[in-house]
Amino acid sequence: MLVVQKFGGTSVGGLDRIENVANIVKKYKENGEDVVVIVSAMAGETNKLLEYAAHFTKTPPQREVDLLVSSGERVTSALLSIALQSKGIDAIALTGRQAGIVTTSDHMKARIMDINPEKMQKQLEKGKVVIVAGFQGINENGDVTTLGRGGSDLTAVAIAGALKADKCEIYTDVDGIYTTDPRIEPNAKKIDMISYDEMLELASLGAKVMQSRSVELAKKLNVDIEVKSSFEPFKKGTLITKENEFMEKVLVSGIALDKNQARVSIFGVEDRPGISAEIFGKLADENINVDMIVQNVGKDNKASLTFTVPATELEMTKKVLKEYENSSEAIEYDSDIAKVSIVGVGMKSHSGVAAEAFETLAKENINILMISTSEIKISMVIAEKYGELAVRALHTAYELDK
Amino acid sequence: MLVVQKFGGTSVGGLDRIENVANIVKKYKENGEDVVVIVSAMAGETNKLLEYAAHFTKTPPQREVDLLVSSGERVTSALLSIALQSKGIDAIALTGRQAGIVTTSDHMKARIMDINPEKMQKQLEKGKVVIVAGFQGINENGDVTTLGRGGSDLTAVAIAGALKADKCEIYTDVDGIYTTDPRIEPNAKKIDMISYDEMLELASLGAKVMQSRSVELAKKLNVDIEVKSSFEPFKKGTLITKENEFMEKVLVSGIALDKNQARVSIFGVEDRPGISAEIFGKLADENINVDMIVQNVGKDNKASLTFTVPATELEMTKKVLKEYENSSEAIEYDSDIAKVSIVGVGMKSHSGVAAEAFETLAKENINILMISTSEIKISMVIAEKYGELAVRALHTAYELDK
Repeated sequence: MLVVQKFGGTSVGGLDRIENVANIVKKYKENGEDVVVIVSAMAGETNKLLEYAAHFTKTPPQREVDLLVSSGERVTSALLSIALQSKGIDAIALTGRQAGIVTTSDHMKARIMDINPEKMQKQLEKGKVVIVAGFQGINENGDVTTLGRGGSDLTAVAIAGALKADKCEIYTDVDGIYTTDPRIEPNAKKIDMISYDEMLELASLGAKVMQSRSVELAKKLNVDIEVKSSFEPFKKGTLITKENEFMEKVLVSGIALDKNQARVSIFGVEDRPGISAEIFGKLADENINVDMIVQNVGKDNKASLTFTVPATELEMTKKVLKEYENSSEAIEYDSDIAKVSIVGVGMKSHSGVAAEAFETLAKENINILMISTSEIKISMVIAEKYGELAVRALHTAYELDK
Repeated sequence: MLVVQKFGGTSVGGLDRIENVANIVKKYKENGEDVVVIVSAMAGETNKLLEYAAHFTKTPPQREVDLLVSSGERVTSALLSIALQSKGIDAIALTGRQAGIVTTSDHMKARIMDINPEKMQKQLEKGKVVIVAGFQGINENGDVTTLGRGGSDLTAVAIAGALKADKCEIYTDVDGIYTTDPRIEPNAKKIDMISYDEMLELASLGAKVMQSRSVELAKKLNVDIEVKSSFEPFKKGTLITKENEFMEKVLVSGIALDKNQARVSIFGVEDRPGISAEIFGKLADENINVDMIVQNVGKDNKASLTFTVPATELEMTKKVLKEYENSSEAIEYDSDIAKVSIVGVGMKSHSGVAAEAFETLAKENINILMISTSEIKISMVIAEKYGELAVRALHTAYELDK
């Protein structure tokens, strides 16, 4: 068995925590498993380095920022290797370059192009635990690059794929993926198994445990991910894997709440071909991520266009839409909204899931402002103040606490 | 003009100090010079990382220690590049590997084998300031190595040699090499120019500004070094260069005091061939650095052997000599000694320098316990308590305060 284990910033946030990780790895190794460990920087280190850079300029050159922040993971990898070797476990720490990780040149948000796993394989054959500094690689020029948010998870999944590992374990400060946020619904249950697609919908909806890009890569490479807690390392976590029969029996897997969206409505805009493409094209030019879109055409051939954007991008959205103020009847902005989403592969083969959701919210007198559905997801925009209530009502309605 | 500038830990010890370095480099660049900058880790960083490692074991694996501590210089190099670019000076930070520094595999004390300067040259041709993380390189396997104490100075000298730079400036917290330690003799004067050999004698005698290995390399590569202060960067420092006519006119360049030695005397040891070789061979096996050696043979064919060792190695020396306790009349140890040394290339062509030294100490009623001389150096061992007095008296006698 070859297992890839990734430990995030909190899990390696101090020397005692690194010692804890060494004990976990040691246990696996002593059970006869081959282990590759991916580590993040110690919690706070990356931000500290970024603050150093910010002392000089608000827009530090990205190539140098990558050289700067990549040192954090190198430190953790060396320390973990030292900790393991002091416990009698043979280990070797590798940088992203030494682990053979070749990326694009897009500094601070590079994509992994290729992994040359020979060095890792050679060390595994020698019986060593291989420790890899996450989040980083080199480009074709030999410059250090970093992979952006969730980069260490991505390193772990990519290496698990390249080494054809049996499993990729992501250790974090929670013990798995929950049916909804336990801070909102104390009866939220840990999910044993979830499909890549469900996880993708949940991740993009604000379940912050796994970044979408890592789940997407895991799906592409067919890597099984287990999300576990580094505080309870021998407790079963949540397995993210390909869709199977067992999952389809479960109607709804989880409910997500996203309160960081804003709603934009353009009323009475002229309904000519290409008007939507024009507006959304201009928003895309400013890197504004438009999410839900609803369009209606009225009797007078004038269209109403409603969509959501991240609340942080609302100001930029207002700027872009300024030129449509005269050619439309009204433009309204509302940032006091919440998006509640129901996710589950079981929906595909069951009807009535959406109807039950609408009914549940109606019973609570919650007005639905927008609806959008996909094969495995139903999203509803409601007033922000009802967000938590809606989550709890739906959680009960779909019997997720059972 | 191509100048290589090295800034040590104190000179880059904080963000404001790094900003100061950026301003120095900017000034040189704006004066039309090509500049390569070598940086150390921020003061305290390397020790902090070593303490992290010591949390796990007293004997951390050296390969991992190198990966760990090398991150310090990388951080400084990236920050300085960011600082320079924020001031409108085009710059690029390179790691030891990227700068083409190939070393032996002796981790924590690697030697530079080769420098491939192509990448540096290419960036210089583009008009960029090239910043190199000091103290580090990679071995033939691509593993990170570090160069040991004074490693960043060594990087600077080696790069200055490889690039055929016009000068190598070593910025530190003092403004040059002094005729003696100004804390002992307030009238000590800064030396304008000193030969490699004189500097080597002074360095090995406790003048801590430059490590001997860097001066040796500078001599071998014929690199001119200027030792300067990063607090007064535009003030002339001390030039370390090859011996020239001007220097030979100066009788004595400097006086050094070393109080970290201990004296060992073996009386009445049998004077058979090879006895010295045997004793010093056994000391060498334990890595004990024997410095001054004096041997006398008396009438009864029994020899007296006196030598000095670093005070920190005295205990080990006692262990090694235990077996000679019976075959000699007595073994005495004295750690309350000081070694005072007079250095100057002018001695070669002048007689009477030694006589004047002996006379000066006699006038002060200081008894000389041992004497050893080389072409450009006279060393005398005296009682420790007279160390500072001897330095001041000799400083005056050779008119070094003039």
